[in-house]
Amino acid sequence: MPLLNDDRLFPAESAIRNVAKKLYASIRDLPIISPHGHTQAIWFAANQPFPDPAKLFIQPDHYVHRMLYSQGVRLEDLEIGVDTIADPRKVWRIFADLYYLFRGTPTRLWLDYAFQELFGLDQRLSSQTADLYFDTISAKLQTPEFLPRALFNRFNIQVLATTDSPLDSLADHQAIRDSGWNGRVLPTFRPDSVVDPDFAGFASNIHALGQQTGEDTSTWKGYLAALRHARNRFRSMGCTATDHGHPTANTANLSTAASAALFTKILSGKSTADEHELFRAQMLTEMARMSLEDGLVMQIHPGSVRNHNLELFRKFGRDMGADIPSQTNYVEGLRPLLDLFGNEAGLTIILFTLDESTYTRELAPLAGHYPCLRLGPPWWFLDSPEGMMRFRELATETAGFYNTVGFNDDTRAFLSIPARHDVARRIDCAFLARLVAEHRIDQDEAFDLAQQLTNTLVRRAYKL
Amino acid sequence: MPLLNDDRLFPAESAIRNVAKKLYASIRDLPIISPHGHTQAIWFAANQPFPDPAKLFIQPDHYVHRMLYSQGVRLEDLEIGVDTIADPRKVWRIFADLYYLFRGTPTRLWLDYAFQELFGLDQRLSSQTADLYFDTISAKLQTPEFLPRALFNRFNIQVLATTDSPLDSLADHQAIRDSGWNGRVLPTFRPDSVVDPDFAGFASNIHALGQQTGEDTSTWKGYLAALRHARNRFRSMGCTATDHGHPTANTANLSTAASAALFTKILSGKSTADEHELFRAQMLTEMARMSLEDGLVMQIHPGSVRNHNLELFRKFGRDMGADIPSQTNYVEGLRPLLDLFGNEAGLTIILFTLDESTYTRELAPLAGHYPCLRLGPPWWFLDSPEGMMRFRELATETAGFYNTVGFNDDTRAFLSIPARHDVARRIDCAFLARLVAEHRIDQDEAFDLAQQLTNTLVRRAYKL
Amino acid sequence: MPLLNDDRLFPAESAIRNVAKKLYASIRDLPIISPHGHTQAIWFAANQPFPDPAKLFIQPDHYVHRMLYSQGVRLEDLEIGVDTIADPRKVWRIFADLYYLFRGTPTRLWLDYAFQELFGLDQRLSSQTADLYFDTISAKLQTPEFLPRALFNRFNIQVLATTDSPLDSLADHQAIRDSGWNGRVLPTFRPDSVVDPDFAGFASNIHALGQQTGEDTSTWKGYLAALRHARNRFRSMGCTATDHGHPTANTANLSTAASAALFTKILSGKSTADEHELFRAQMLTEMARMSLEDGLVMQIHPGSVRNHNLELFRKFGRDMGADIPSQTNYVEGLRPLLDLFGNEAGLTIILFTLDESTYTRELAPLAGHYPCLRLGPPWWFLDSPEGMMRFRELATETAGFYNTVGFNDDTRAFLSIPARHDVARRIDCAFLARLVAEHRIDQDEAFDLAQQLTNTLVRRAYKL
Repeated sequence: MPLLNDDRLFPAESAIRNVAKKLYASIRDLPIISPHGHTQAIWFAANQPFPDPAKLFIQPDHYVHRMLYSQGVRLEDLEIGVDTIADPRKVWRIFADLYYLFRGTPTRLWLDYAFQELFGLDQRLSSQTADLYFDTISAKLQTPEFLPRALFNRFNIQVLATTDSPLDSLADHQAIRDSGWNGRVLPTFRPDSVVDPDFAGFASNIHALGQQTGEDTSTWKGYLAALRHARNRFRSMGCTATDHGHPTANTANLSTAASAALFTKILSGKSTADEHELFRAQMLTEMARMSLEDGLVMQIHPGSVRNHNLELFRKFGRDMGADIPSQTNYVEGLRPLLDLFGNEAGLTIILFTLDESTYTRELAPLAGHYPCLRLGPPWWFLDSPEGMMRFRELATETAGFYNTVGFNDDTRAFLSIPARHDVARRIDCAFLARLVAEHRIDQDEAFDLAQQLTNTLVRRAYKL
Repeated sequence: MPLLNDDRLFPAESAIRNVAKKLYASIRDLPIISPHGHTQAIWFAANQPFPDPAKLFIQPDHYVHRMLYSQGVRLEDLEIGVDTIADPRKVWRIFADLYYLFRGTPTRLWLDYAFQELFGLDQRLSSQTADLYFDTISAKLQTPEFLPRALFNRFNIQVLATTDSPLDSLADHQAIRDSGWNGRVLPTFRPDSVVDPDFAGFASNIHALGQQTGEDTSTWKGYLAALRHARNRFRSMGCTATDHGHPTANTANLSTAASAALFTKILSGKSTADEHELFRAQMLTEMARMSLEDGLVMQIHPGSVRNHNLELFRKFGRDMGADIPSQTNYVEGLRPLLDLFGNEAGLTIILFTLDESTYTRELAPLAGHYPCLRLGPPWWFLDSPEGMMRFRELATETAGFYNTVGFNDDTRAFLSIPARHDVARRIDCAFLARLVAEHRIDQDEAFDLAQQLTNTLVRRAYKL
Repeated sequence: MPLLNDDRLFPAESAIRNVAKKLYASIRDLPIISPHGHTQAIWFAANQPFPDPAKLFIQPDHYVHRMLYSQGVRLEDLEIGVDTIADPRKVWRIFADLYYLFRGTPTRLWLDYAFQELFGLDQRLSSQTADLYFDTISAKLQTPEFLPRALFNRFNIQVLATTDSPLDSLADHQAIRDSGWNGRVLPTFRPDSVVDPDFAGFASNIHALGQQTGEDTSTWKGYLAALRHARNRFRSMGCTATDHGHPTANTANLSTAASAALFTKILSGKSTADEHELFRAQMLTEMARMSLEDGLVMQIHPGSVRNHNLELFRKFGRDMGADIPSQTNYVEGLRPLLDLFGNEAGLTIILFTLDESTYTRELAPLAGHYPCLRLGPPWWFLDSPEGMMRFRELATETAGFYNTVGFNDDTRAFLSIPARHDVARRIDCAFLARLVAEHRIDQDEAFDLAQQLTNTLVRRAYKL
């Protein structure tokens, strides 16, 4: 029995399933547009083989190792945090032994897709098949067909955006351009390291930003000029969007004098946690102001308590699967920014959430009104069949489809990209098919919407 | 292909759909009871033709123009806020061009119903059919069959409640009574303008209330007497309910002396925002106290941040589609009121929400316990197929059906009333049919409940 | 027509229902493991007949009398709070007259199951059948087959945990052991009365704890020693778990000196509400510390506003159906405890909630990461078909199945235990069947998971 059934994720009810299958057939072969994610440009610049299965599938994927960790597996035993895995087969076997833990999770769907579609495996991963998997994957990774650029083409990716610090030289992006390869890989401007005073090394980051841009970043004016400079550099490399990972959705509208004073105080190292939050809030507003000038689309990803597990953070650092969502207030948080720029149809701000209680209460009403606002797809823990379906069920009636922007795979795991887009397309088709079966839209509209959600709305929102 | 399918909104699964159809057939022709809404008594007093299609369908309906606005249409181009639309056909064409934006929204369901059932249109509204629609609707609006009273009868409305300020003379309601027409149109007592210190013109409203009632509204005692007087005036015109649109669900239980002092301070114009909130809270309690005396049913609609869009409010005023929900705390907010009157079975307080996270956490547990509490139907952004279904799924298991009060159309759009009740009836039947198909209730019970939800519980809760 | 249909609670769609039926057939006869509930050990120690139907089904069941109360029935008329019901038939008739109020609620499912499966009744309870029910139930309760131990065996209960105060002598548990009867009834350590300063009689409880354990509970050190002593006493009677019913999920990590000072202040009777909350928070951490030593599993049931109805509390005391949920913050609340013990795979903390908005935002992300955390089943108002299904839909994709712990019946109503487990098993099978029908897991996995959820995960989590 294969790992994947052709009808997976479609509702069982035959009238709905039949429509869903037809809709899906009409979009399954559309190219992938990936406007937000965390793959690395160097993969495509260097085009070197991916390393062993453990390094590829386990180590970078916090969806995978957080589940193993939750069930008592030590990160040391998975060799998390080491550069070269000493015993990748041993790590892989731990994973294989516990693969049943992923039943009912999207990780299972993504991995099975990669296992079958890329590596031709058709028995379920388990203790029994661990070595078969390890050997098969290891061997294929050394073939030309599995080099990053070859996979990029095989995945039918039309455009792939990475996420990058303003301090990044973008040399890898430049190298891709210089290489003559025609894959379209674009940077995204993610300034957390230079706009969030709580970011590790904030002061030295500000200093480095000054050096890089030739601006005096010890003054508010010079700091803003440096950010403009960096944005322009990103734009010259094809960047169309910024991304902001703040703990809250708070924005502010301070006077220039107040902003400058706050900036000076923060640089002095004597500022409080509240002042850091206020500075982040003001910087979202400044970023919106710059977006209005230079046309970069803003993405706001708020509401994550980073590094909730103190011990793990001390031992292993960031992004160890220990970021936990928290309540987010968009209605009050965004108000200062919206008071300034909310009615600008030329500005696009895409909102994400980890707090589903805001879909009907805040996000759909906001996006269904303010011309500058759009709703990003379900993010992170919500990037799952049930999560995506809830998003459509909860947001569509107030925001409609046209205030949404299609799918983000948002992944560090390059090999999961086709699987993730496939899940999103299937769930969208399942939702549309139910609307058709319940006579809430007509079938011709559903076909059109399937195209919109997969392609048109993505390109329009991200200016791609 | 007609715009409406007879099976619309029923689940696709045949066992459920078959039961739903039978249930619906048993209630589809029941008269409409509309105990809460925002139609205008003058329509039925004057019985003049409705104006052009744009004035009828677009201008007053913030569901319509907020969606268009969210996608970049300027309100000026829709001639929002003008008394007489200069070029209604042009406005209509903008709307028709963008009608696809409403796919998947309840607005689409309501409009298609009106287009087909009232105007006989059976091609979808689009750029191509814009003029056909405009001409057809314009022509029909001039016929006697489309006069307000004729439509009221055609809609099979048994009773229709408007929403009115205590300062309203109710002359239009009196004119209806005097006219000899037998349509039952009742006022609802909505005192926000005289109990909310943040309401525009609060102080002068209080003064006007005093003049109107002959009470000295510069004193707390006189103010309460004036409110009692106004309530009695409404009751004499058939009013059975009050309605309260506060930003929160907060109530208070101040002493008479403290209330009087607070009132005096607020009239002095030197009060703070917190004092305004406390005053509103106290006034909900006072209204409950009066309801216990005079029998008026209380409706509380909390949790809306009014006029969130400052620029739009400055340009166009209230009710421009820019009210956004916010988190609401019923458990602590209502406590002072419930401590006083919660156990009064003779009092009826109907609670509404825009915060669905409260259904299982707060509202169903409260209504499933306190004798005075009932749950109003899904409101505003939640008045939609998915929203109504969630309400039943989330509230029924704890509050049961009998602590709910049937449907409110809550609309400014008179022509949408039959459509809205039709949607509510279909969704209730769909929910009941699933319970039958899953053997959670028997079919005879479902038939009884369909009657209850459409008629009996409404009449009982609103004393109609 | 019987009260129960064999296919009840299974989705109507035939492909899903067929799988659900097969899954259910594989687990329907598994023994009941009840690791958390509120039955009384004395029932099994004394093995006396249950009294009349009103005393059995109405008086102790706040699900029943809260609904009746919400619709205007006076608790006095139900003879709530009296030791011996003067006119049980009259009380029963009130209930029977209003049995329709429970349509769509889990109470209806539980009661119908008991009526049919235990008492052989097959006509619906109503005014017409009230006396038939009363007479049938009354007669059967006097037969040997309806004695508590006989029912325990008939229900196929493998283990049943009660919930007990540290001040309880556990004499009834000892009597069960001494009796030679082989039913496994275990105590659970519920220390609210001696760790919550707001608990009635807190100071005298602390004093009694000292006397019982021979420790000086006027000092922090002696108090902790007394708690350890009491825990050991419970463990010697088979106890495997503690349970904590705090108003919030707050924890703290005070120094020993600060804890001791806080304890002294609280015993002095001069402490504030905030200090009471801080003490409860610290005590959760102390309980976790002791669990790490002695192996007792921790259960945390936060987020209930107890005795919300002041008048009822004054008249009738606790547990009158007037506890109302409130918002709960696990992410910040649990942080101090998790900073200390979150990474201990040897510790098990089972989290419950009454705030469903936390499932995807907080609980599943936390349990899907921290080795010590597990998710308890839907609790109280959420222990219902829709509530259970939402739990699976919302929690599984992030936490998986293996960070959950199976079902708790959590009931005071002994006769409802089989019904409650039956509902849980059916809903789990319905959920698993949908995953199979949508090709998200394979059928062999679903059969395994059905066993896990019913048995394996329960025994593992609770160390049974």
